[in-house]
Amino acid sequence: MAEAHERLEAEDLQRNLREVQELVRLQDLAGLRASLDRTHPADIAFMLEALPPEERLAVWGLVKADRDGEILVEVSEAVRESLIASMDKSELVAAAETLEADQLADIAGDLPPAVIEEVVRSLSAEERAQLRAALSFPEGSVGALMDFEHVTVRADVTLEAATRYLRRLDELPSHTDQLFVVDRGERLQGTLPLARLIVADLEREVGQVLVAESVRFQPEDRAEDAAGAFERYDLVSAPVIDQAGRLIGRLTVDAVVDYIRQRSADSQLAEGGLSQEEDVFASVLDSFKNRWAWLAVNLVTAFIASRVIGAFEGSIAQLVALAALMPIVAGIGGNTGNQTTTMIVRALALGQIQGAYWKKLLGKEIGVALLNGALWGTLLGAIAYMFYGSVALGGVMALAMILNLVLAALMGVGIPWLRARLGRDPAAGSSVLLTAVTDSGGFFIFLGLATLFLV
Amino acid sequence: MAEAHERLEAEDLQRNLREVQELVRLQDLAGLRASLDRTHPADIAFMLEALPPEERLAVWGLVKADRDGEILVEVSEAVRESLIASMDKSELVAAAETLEADQLADIAGDLPPAVIEEVVRSLSAEERAQLRAALSFPEGSVGALMDFEHVTVRADVTLEAATRYLRRLDELPSHTDQLFVVDRGERLQGTLPLARLIVADLEREVGQVLVAESVRFQPEDRAEDAAGAFERYDLVSAPVIDQAGRLIGRLTVDAVVDYIRQRSADSQLAEGGLSQEEDVFASVLDSFKNRWAWLAVNLVTAFIASRVIGAFEGSIAQLVALAALMPIVAGIGGNTGNQTTTMIVRALALGQIQGAYWKKLLGKEIGVALLNGALWGTLLGAIAYMFYGSVALGGVMALAMILNLVLAALMGVGIPWLRARLGRDPAAGSSVLLTAVTDSGGFFIFLGLATLFLV
Repeated sequence: MAEAHERLEAEDLQRNLREVQELVRLQDLAGLRASLDRTHPADIAFMLEALPPEERLAVWGLVKADRDGEILVEVSEAVRESLIASMDKSELVAAAETLEADQLADIAGDLPPAVIEEVVRSLSAEERAQLRAALSFPEGSVGALMDFEHVTVRADVTLEAATRYLRRLDELPSHTDQLFVVDRGERLQGTLPLARLIVADLEREVGQVLVAESVRFQPEDRAEDAAGAFERYDLVSAPVIDQAGRLIGRLTVDAVVDYIRQRSADSQLAEGGLSQEEDVFASVLDSFKNRWAWLAVNLVTAFIASRVIGAFEGSIAQLVALAALMPIVAGIGGNTGNQTTTMIVRALALGQIQGAYWKKLLGKEIGVALLNGALWGTLLGAIAYMFYGSVALGGVMALAMILNLVLAALMGVGIPWLRARLGRDPAAGSSVLLTAVTDSGGFFIFLGLATLFLV
Repeated sequence: MAEAHERLEAEDLQRNLREVQELVRLQDLAGLRASLDRTHPADIAFMLEALPPEERLAVWGLVKADRDGEILVEVSEAVRESLIASMDKSELVAAAETLEADQLADIAGDLPPAVIEEVVRSLSAEERAQLRAALSFPEGSVGALMDFEHVTVRADVTLEAATRYLRRLDELPSHTDQLFVVDRGERLQGTLPLARLIVADLEREVGQVLVAESVRFQPEDRAEDAAGAFERYDLVSAPVIDQAGRLIGRLTVDAVVDYIRQRSADSQLAEGGLSQEEDVFASVLDSFKNRWAWLAVNLVTAFIASRVIGAFEGSIAQLVALAALMPIVAGIGGNTGNQTTTMIVRALALGQIQGAYWKKLLGKEIGVALLNGALWGTLLGAIAYMFYGSVALGGVMALAMILNLVLAALMGVGIPWLRARLGRDPAAGSSVLLTAVTDSGGFFIFLGLATLFLV
């Protein structure tokens, strides 16, 4: 535990970062090393993220080797890769050997296989089993987030004996707000909150004061669901048990907070079209690699929309105003459809939509689309009439708008519904798919109506 | 505290919800009331969110009045409004009177002024001061998130005396992982973690074992920064002090988790074009109100882009292929610009970009734009040539692509930079503004080049 390092508020952290930059610039290695030794590992991780490659590696080289491990666990994956690339095998082994099994599992994917092999050989049988357990559960499961630092007691000892046992421990693991009560077969019988241990009569037995019905998870449970339970019930820690009811680990609120942050970051990145967290100071080539896939998908959808327009070139040649008006119809369709999808994806993630309510939802969204279509369609129809002096063109504009908004509502509900039914994440890619349909659909509806009624 | 209610995992919660729906359908009021009495307030809140208006109010009417308050605190703002609208003044006063000052402050904005007045009259002087304090700090500050349920001890008592004092309390407030050590003037001297209290020698004095350098916040601090500190240092609770160093409240990890979730939801909603959290079962009119502002903004930007195209109608009339190709140039510009902005907004939120590095960043992003432009521009130029048989058209396409991607990179860096310099939230609206520029800019560049070289 890093109790010895000072903990900083946001402003002090920024000032500290500027100091470190200045020390790097002045090549004041002694000053830099002294400053880093004082700094909390999480803050060193923060600084490494905020420094460009050369400065980052200069700082990394001065961090004491016995702190490398915990800092590697803290940094983002992109930065971790750049740090690991700068270390040789023996340094990596030394760093990895300072970690707990659950931390090791977190960074195992980024370490060279030879390093893992050597580290595993140095582990005790118990640690090896823990590492195997932590690695065996997929990302996004409780098993991937749990740690093994729980403290257990038996139900048939007195609180006094339990307290004496705790005193023999040097210190309690962080986030120990409760002890786990197990029987001889390691089966979980309940939990004993420290707050209860402190206020209860010491003569009583653990079994008399334990909380039997506390929330427990299995390692296969979805991390998202566990995060929901932590949020609903304001938990600090919770036991993780196997199918036989045996205690195998615990989940703590700090792991849950990291998970929530990471998930929110991932969805932000995905919506912005980045494949994964990007090191701000990545090279041009690394950035390109992180971004090309999304651009390629968009290029294909843009190309399809372009071919839809191409099919109506005859009409556009006769009435060139169509070219200027068509992006409005397509664009607003995409916007309204994304509003619908955003709301539904959120409600789905929170578990708020039951099977029976989809039809109700669709009805409501089509209602909103008709209201929007009538309002904005009339407005735009009037504007089209003002600019081009044709009532028919204004009418086509208004009608196209209404139809494309209804299409957007259908797709805005339908795409997440279909993805949820197929058991896929309803968020991923919904927006791209939706915009593809409303773009091509908008062009088709508007140019098609124009061809029917105007040319 | 609601220790008596069972706590459910995600699957049980969904099953419970279906049961409640069934009981509502069968009009089995006795069964429904019994089921609700067993249910944790956070789970009732969840169910109310997931039920359409009629069912929601039917359930709400059967919840025991003494639980109304805590449930109102748990639900989202949109649902809270619908529940409050169904209650009369005396019910609201009764519900509000069951709440702590910090909880009351959370929902005060949604209560009618007459209710607040009456509740305030029933508060003790201390509670009134707490309520005033909680209401005086703006949303997004530590003061708005803090509570007042801390337990304090003096430095000059022995651990045994401290333990005896704790035993006299019926139970400790939730999330009490440490006691706050204060002097006679209520000035914070440090904290005493329960884990330390349990393992330390009871003869020692609090002053000898306290942690002096623990993180502390002031109520004016940004909640975002505090959340960062909770995440970096894995905190469960932290003291909040005024400028004179006096303890005035505490911040707990459950409030921080709620804040992080809420912030992530807000940014998701804003990106999707919703003004605020929307009740999935809101009426068509309420949904329309939540969405029209964003559509109006997009309509204006779409209209501007349309006028840019309108200015080149002569060129399009001569070469109608331009109409089909122009949305591709505009669209890909928006996509790449959003990638840049997403990455920068994230890094800014994490405090990772120092003043000196903006130029470096811009250089890198222009590098990525040139690489993307050369690649996709060549590809699209070749496709344009294939479809329309004109080398010049292909060349214009490629060149327009490169230029619009460079424009997108400039704006993708420039817009968040400018907003950050002006002290505005760099996230809000960046994407709309960027897309407006790359759309209009893309049409202008492509049609302008075509007019120069092709027609």
